[in-house]
Amino acid sequence: MAINYTSRGGVLLGLESFFNPKSIAVIGASNNPAKLGYEVYKNLKKYEGIVYPVNKKETSIQGDKAYKSVLDIPGKVDLGVIVIPRDHVLKAVEESGIKGVKSLIIITGGFGETGDEGKRLEKRILRTARKYGMRIIGPNCVGIMNTWNNLNATFILAARKGRTALISQSGALGAGIIYKTFQEKIGFSKFISLGNMIDVDFAEIIDYLAEDEYTSSIALYIEGLENGRKFIQTAKRVSRKKPIVVLKSGRSSGGARAISSHTGSLAGSYRIYRAAFKQSGIITAEKIDEMLSMARVFDVGVLPKRCEAAVMTNAGGPGVLVSDELEERGIRLSSLQYDTKESLKKILPPIASHNNPVDMVASARGREYYEVLKILMRDPNVGLVVAVCVVPTFAGMTRTEHAEGLIKAYNELGRPKPLIGLFMAGEISSDAKEILEKNNVPVYERPEDVAAAAYALCQHSSRKEV
Amino acid sequence: MAINYTSRGGVLLGLESFFNPKSIAVIGASNNPAKLGYEVYKNLKKYEGIVYPVNKKETSIQGDKAYKSVLDIPGKVDLGVIVIPRDHVLKAVEESGIKGVKSLIIITGGFGETGDEGKRLEKRILRTARKYGMRIIGPNCVGIMNTWNNLNATFILAARKGRTALISQSGALGAGIIYKTFQEKIGFSKFISLGNMIDVDFAEIIDYLAEDEYTSSIALYIEGLENGRKFIQTAKRVSRKKPIVVLKSGRSSGGARAISSHTGSLAGSYRIYRAAFKQSGIITAEKIDEMLSMARVFDVGVLPKRCEAAVMTNAGGPGVLVSDELEERGIRLSSLQYDTKESLKKILPPIASHNNPVDMVASARGREYYEVLKILMRDPNVGLVVAVCVVPTFAGMTRTEHAEGLIKAYNELGRPKPLIGLFMAGEISSDAKEILEKNNVPVYERPEDVAAAAYALCQHSSRKEV
Repeated sequence: MAINYTSRGGVLLGLESFFNPKSIAVIGASNNPAKLGYEVYKNLKKYEGIVYPVNKKETSIQGDKAYKSVLDIPGKVDLGVIVIPRDHVLKAVEESGIKGVKSLIIITGGFGETGDEGKRLEKRILRTARKYGMRIIGPNCVGIMNTWNNLNATFILAARKGRTALISQSGALGAGIIYKTFQEKIGFSKFISLGNMIDVDFAEIIDYLAEDEYTSSIALYIEGLENGRKFIQTAKRVSRKKPIVVLKSGRSSGGARAISSHTGSLAGSYRIYRAAFKQSGIITAEKIDEMLSMARVFDVGVLPKRCEAAVMTNAGGPGVLVSDELEERGIRLSSLQYDTKESLKKILPPIASHNNPVDMVASARGREYYEVLKILMRDPNVGLVVAVCVVPTFAGMTRTEHAEGLIKAYNELGRPKPLIGLFMAGEISSDAKEILEKNNVPVYERPEDVAAAAYALCQHSSRKEV
Repeated sequence: MAINYTSRGGVLLGLESFFNPKSIAVIGASNNPAKLGYEVYKNLKKYEGIVYPVNKKETSIQGDKAYKSVLDIPGKVDLGVIVIPRDHVLKAVEESGIKGVKSLIIITGGFGETGDEGKRLEKRILRTARKYGMRIIGPNCVGIMNTWNNLNATFILAARKGRTALISQSGALGAGIIYKTFQEKIGFSKFISLGNMIDVDFAEIIDYLAEDEYTSSIALYIEGLENGRKFIQTAKRVSRKKPIVVLKSGRSSGGARAISSHTGSLAGSYRIYRAAFKQSGIITAEKIDEMLSMARVFDVGVLPKRCEAAVMTNAGGPGVLVSDELEERGIRLSSLQYDTKESLKKILPPIASHNNPVDMVASARGREYYEVLKILMRDPNVGLVVAVCVVPTFAGMTRTEHAEGLIKAYNELGRPKPLIGLFMAGEISSDAKEILEKNNVPVYERPEDVAAAAYALCQHSSRKEV
């Protein structure tokens, strides 16, 4: 159903007006907190640009002067956000076209996902939009966010600022992910809920994000693709610049059936999807946390030249678990050079292990983390370093000295190879994690997330244009 | 190395004095916060029973009268906690024996894990303990906790109260797990760091926990077993009463190498372990969260009679993802009966899905969760119900009404089948999750954890004595 706009000589029409509009009309802005139009307008009041509420009955919305129709708005309108009952949407699209609106987000549901009648209505809406050269995201979506200019054109809470763009075919899943990342302090550059994708689709969005300076990685939740070939071709091109991580649901028959009733689209064979993703340089995730872990590891800003890892730890068990996870991802533990081991022996007590994983034992303090990271980073057999720490609450140590030691060494060395943290003590380690994150060292709480992240770095490293 | 005490006609000697001692001596209690003996004594000051500090130099420890030796203590001593330098441990063990101490926790490290000299010292310690009939946990361990009587005989922070016993061969991993569960509000009945296991081992501990009224499930982190046959035989017996979940590390060659340098024991072939676990009714986990998710699902207090699930959701994507995860665990989605679907149609709007997963769409409120759970629980094809919710922050809904609806229905029905929650919105859903947890409905944030939990219920259901 989607029309391939990107094929017009590669010129992208109008996506910029979705993410950086000078002015926005909220068609269906409301004073009633039980309505989605209430939340959408409330969220957009924080936007940097001009925002007009449109409501055919009210004269003011949330204290601002309201307009009966988009046609009554005195100034220009770049973006229209439509959140009115289904049967009024087509008229609002027509009026937006007359007004000269460039882009529309149609949040309203009840279209193609409910059957043939809804599909016919979608076609009429698309024809109308084309007539005026307007682009559409949706319908049946949550909306979009650009965290870097405070644009929240959705009815959900705004995401934290970050470097990963999240695109979700399920709006509710997008909300669930954004909400869960609040406490994990994970941010996003942009969020796009694509809904029924009658116009703007995955391919066009990733093409746009490839050039977006605020986005360093792209995470996609996909249920089903209508135009797989276009997506694969685009992804093949984009993945040479920026990493793309995909979570594709419908792996099981039950999941696939659920998709067809949820989005009306066919889930397709997971195997075929997976093979196509691989071929086009997309990194596949099977869990939400895995996807997020992979996407945000690129904050570290350097790719590994070889896919072998050194693990340093103050805790034996976690060192073993992360070694298992790394090797299951095909990332072997580096065999440390003779000089490296000799240097480690000078720094560490005799009961420590000077092999990889390097077990510095529980007495290791900031100084040991500093020295050992320097030694490991200098070993040519080491492609990346995983620094494990169960932050000790005893022996008079501070809760941040281990992280501080790592950052000092890493910055002094000029960040020559990726460093990934595994800090496993929940809120006990939150100050330490904050130090690492502030210094763009990705840090995780679970061994499997570290391995997923390291795997993503290696995959992208083998892919990226030199 | 471990001596099989449980074989003496099944009589367990002395483990009770580890977990419910009338009096404790901390041998090596300290005033110096840089020493572990400082933390151990500080932690034990909160214990319900009598606690004596022993320090050969100081006259008072943390404000309490100190004793030069355990022999100077006026009253009886049930449990001794030894946290002094390695070369003084043997003498302290001998003195404890003379004093009539029943059990010893030796926290001090530097024994078998460091080589042959340490192993010889361990043998002398064990012989001394045997001479006096004393039992030993450790050496080289973090200690033990009994959350139900405020016993924290470790140098780490106390765990929350709960129903899962956690036994870890890595003390630091145990600490990492306990700290991470603070924010997840997961509790434990007991925690045992076994260390080098020169006497008390996994087998004996699980035998003890089988009879412990505060423990409803047992979670084990194992690196390597010295006496596998004894463990398997014990587990076979215990797993008919209480679920046992094991995380065994050393799946990879790198992990296995790390284990041998960490504990001095052989990791053994993971495949062989896995097969033996399966044979003895142990549920195997491969990640920390998976293990914890499996162990705490038994809080629900009812086992499924058939391993087919109904999924109800207000969010399409999460419904699909959890369906995928359930089916990958071998738990099929129930095919709902005709009457069930008809009842659902009466309750839900036309755009909802009346198949399984039942997508109630985002407008579903507390009432829908109440009604739909009742309908699904009554369908004989349904063995357990997974209730998914992305807590809406719009449309004037409260953040707890969905959970409240579920609990009302579940309690009215008399909890006939397991109910598992999947509440995916991070801190937005924390009030809702609290309601479920208070009512002993296990609730998770990740689809894979729900599937792991459902799998554990099904495994134990097929195993348990009727």
